[in-house]
Amino acid sequence: MDAIDVIVTKRDGRELSREQIDWVIDAYTKGVVADEQMSALAMAILLNGMNRREIAEWTQAMIRSGSRMDWSALPGRTTDKHSTGGVGDKITLPLAPLVAACGGYVPQLSGRGLGHTGGTLDKLESIPGWRASLSNDEMLDVLGKAGAVICAAGDGLAPADKKLYALRDVTGTVEAIPLIASSIMSKKIAEGTGALVLDVKVGSGAFMKTVERARELATTMVELGTDAGVNTVALLTAMDRPLGCAVGNALEVTESVEVLAGGGPADVVELTVRLAREMLQAAGVSGKDPEEALKDGSAMDAWRRMIIAQGGDPDALLPRAAESMEITAPASGVLTRLDAYGVGLAAWRLGAGRERKEDPVSFGAGITLHAKPGDLVREGQPLMTLHADETSRFDRALAALEGAYAVAASGDEELLPLVIDRITA
Amino acid sequence: MDAIDVIVTKRDGRELSREQIDWVIDAYTKGVVADEQMSALAMAILLNGMNRREIAEWTQAMIRSGSRMDWSALPGRTTDKHSTGGVGDKITLPLAPLVAACGGYVPQLSGRGLGHTGGTLDKLESIPGWRASLSNDEMLDVLGKAGAVICAAGDGLAPADKKLYALRDVTGTVEAIPLIASSIMSKKIAEGTGALVLDVKVGSGAFMKTVERARELATTMVELGTDAGVNTVALLTAMDRPLGCAVGNALEVTESVEVLAGGGPADVVELTVRLAREMLQAAGVSGKDPEEALKDGSAMDAWRRMIIAQGGDPDALLPRAAESMEITAPASGVLTRLDAYGVGLAAWRLGAGRERKEDPVSFGAGITLHAKPGDLVREGQPLMTLHADETSRFDRALAALEGAYAVAASGDEELLPLVIDRITA
Repeated sequence: MDAIDVIVTKRDGRELSREQIDWVIDAYTKGVVADEQMSALAMAILLNGMNRREIAEWTQAMIRSGSRMDWSALPGRTTDKHSTGGVGDKITLPLAPLVAACGGYVPQLSGRGLGHTGGTLDKLESIPGWRASLSNDEMLDVLGKAGAVICAAGDGLAPADKKLYALRDVTGTVEAIPLIASSIMSKKIAEGTGALVLDVKVGSGAFMKTVERARELATTMVELGTDAGVNTVALLTAMDRPLGCAVGNALEVTESVEVLAGGGPADVVELTVRLAREMLQAAGVSGKDPEEALKDGSAMDAWRRMIIAQGGDPDALLPRAAESMEITAPASGVLTRLDAYGVGLAAWRLGAGRERKEDPVSFGAGITLHAKPGDLVREGQPLMTLHADETSRFDRALAALEGAYAVAASGDEELLPLVIDRITA
Repeated sequence: MDAIDVIVTKRDGRELSREQIDWVIDAYTKGVVADEQMSALAMAILLNGMNRREIAEWTQAMIRSGSRMDWSALPGRTTDKHSTGGVGDKITLPLAPLVAACGGYVPQLSGRGLGHTGGTLDKLESIPGWRASLSNDEMLDVLGKAGAVICAAGDGLAPADKKLYALRDVTGTVEAIPLIASSIMSKKIAEGTGALVLDVKVGSGAFMKTVERARELATTMVELGTDAGVNTVALLTAMDRPLGCAVGNALEVTESVEVLAGGGPADVVELTVRLAREMLQAAGVSGKDPEEALKDGSAMDAWRRMIIAQGGDPDALLPRAAESMEITAPASGVLTRLDAYGVGLAAWRLGAGRERKEDPVSFGAGITLHAKPGDLVREGQPLMTLHADETSRFDRALAALEGAYAVAASGDEELLPLVIDRITA
């Protein structure tokens, strides 16, 4: 077997065999298959597709390239959530401790932000002292103490995916559903969770711009999880506008703590509770109801235990940006439009995200929204506040927001429902 | 502009702009665009195609990556031929001096064999002393003395193509007609010939297995040449069986000299004369008729001058392989089948070709054919002789020949006509 044989098979529209898939993933991980060969194969997969068997075998091969975690020592069932990424999507932060407070164990491996979407680890790192890197023993320890842990995936987990993801990022081959699905699911399956709820975002601020593409990705991932013995459910949820009112690392931590305290924006609360119920149901855990756990303070207690167990100070003041700027309503009427991509791009340019993987993020940078689509506003009223460490960042952020919001006499822009659909095996 | 922008344009089935093409070829030559990015683009081009404008601009960009040769100092018109490669295709050897003897100037830049097809330079290097590498001044000197020169392309000629060809070879992206056509034509246009005849081979021993694919490639190349001001014609010719009776480096030189002496196999003579007439006509040279130049010895004189001017001894004994083995007819009847690919693969395994680019070839290795398709044979009569430096090579060559020839009571296998079609602008 050689790389050209595998590439030509997919290039000519034929199915890859189990042997070809196992060989090419293993050889790529070891450096026997070169980057330029894998990128040609990735492009052929993007254009010619893979069927359910091929995607499942591709995912399994990536899992086998590394180690698999095991939580059987825990006294309860594990359940996790994965979001395909969006703007203002801080749901993991209140969700993980909330599920823990209701009797589930959440061993969440998260990522960093790239492009206009935020990353859960970047957000939590704005809490002084909090550590993203834990050993497997430390993860088990935090899980035992708090019922939830959120940390970075170690190098041993699906190294083939790590290498392939970096390659796809520079070769225009990110947008292949078989490759997106197998990348996400190889990590989640290797993570060892017993149940999984996928939050597949749809709209301008998401990877998947249309409901059709999102449904295809969700179905593919639910199939992959099911085939691997993980009880998997997916929700398609709205990302045409930002989630909540805070976009940016420390700003989103603050909003998450508000939700855990029983407050917070309605959409964040609704989605957090819905996903918590899905996670508990998928794992077959019937403990406290999530709404109850937000009210009685037990979710907040789990959050504090989790943050402390990872070295963080839940009472510390969070970093704030030195500079701010208000954007006001250009007229009186209804805020008909608040585009997720525009807001995400502006927050990115304000410093909340990184341009290159090695860049630091600004913890305080981002955007606070004072109105959401459908809200009535008066001319001159603040619509949003931009936060940045330097005033020089405002111009490029404002350019990103041009056309991203609109105020009209009557509100007739159609928004996606918060939860669009639910996909099960 | 960046590489991902260019890749995504072609991936999504859109046309590349002139600016994108110029930028990506230049950036790839300089190493700004990485191999893994170019191979993803090559796969997208293979699967989504390029139109006539894109191919022409791609070719021009590759020409501009290096220098362009100039033969205006010669007292006559230049004309050249390019074959897409086949088994036993030694036509360039008698053809170049033949055209020179008829009044044309042939500045031929040739290549080496790869895979089962032979390379003109490997064949000529079996002549003791002959040098493939010449400076531009030396080329002009040989052309002036002999009217023809056959040598290797220097590093300065279309370096983008050189780099891209090596990449395509290992990434399963050789078989894209826009890339094959632009690769061939960028070198031939940069070579500076005024007229060009393309010999596009069709059949098992050729790159193009069907007449349709060969016609598409030929049409694309004729358009490219015409757009670049080179008077270009293409013939589609048969490569379902080998050309002539000799396959292998020194064996083919010997057969070429037979043709120049007025003898040689009928198919080699016919195609050589036909291509010579096409080359002279395309250049507008009306000198001696090629059949006459083979009879009166003037083509042989030009050959001897050309070989001597490049350091070779036209009277030297050529290398012979130490070992040989005869294959005899399994029955009496008609030789109905003699598959070009099978014979080419066997000759390759005997040592006439190389497995890796850096391997040496065996000059004496190859196959002598004692019968051609359509010939009557008696049981036990020699069909072919295999030549190799070590007897250990015969087994794998015999395996390649299994099913490659057949003797039947009556001959009903249909062969392609030697010249299938002629394509002009």
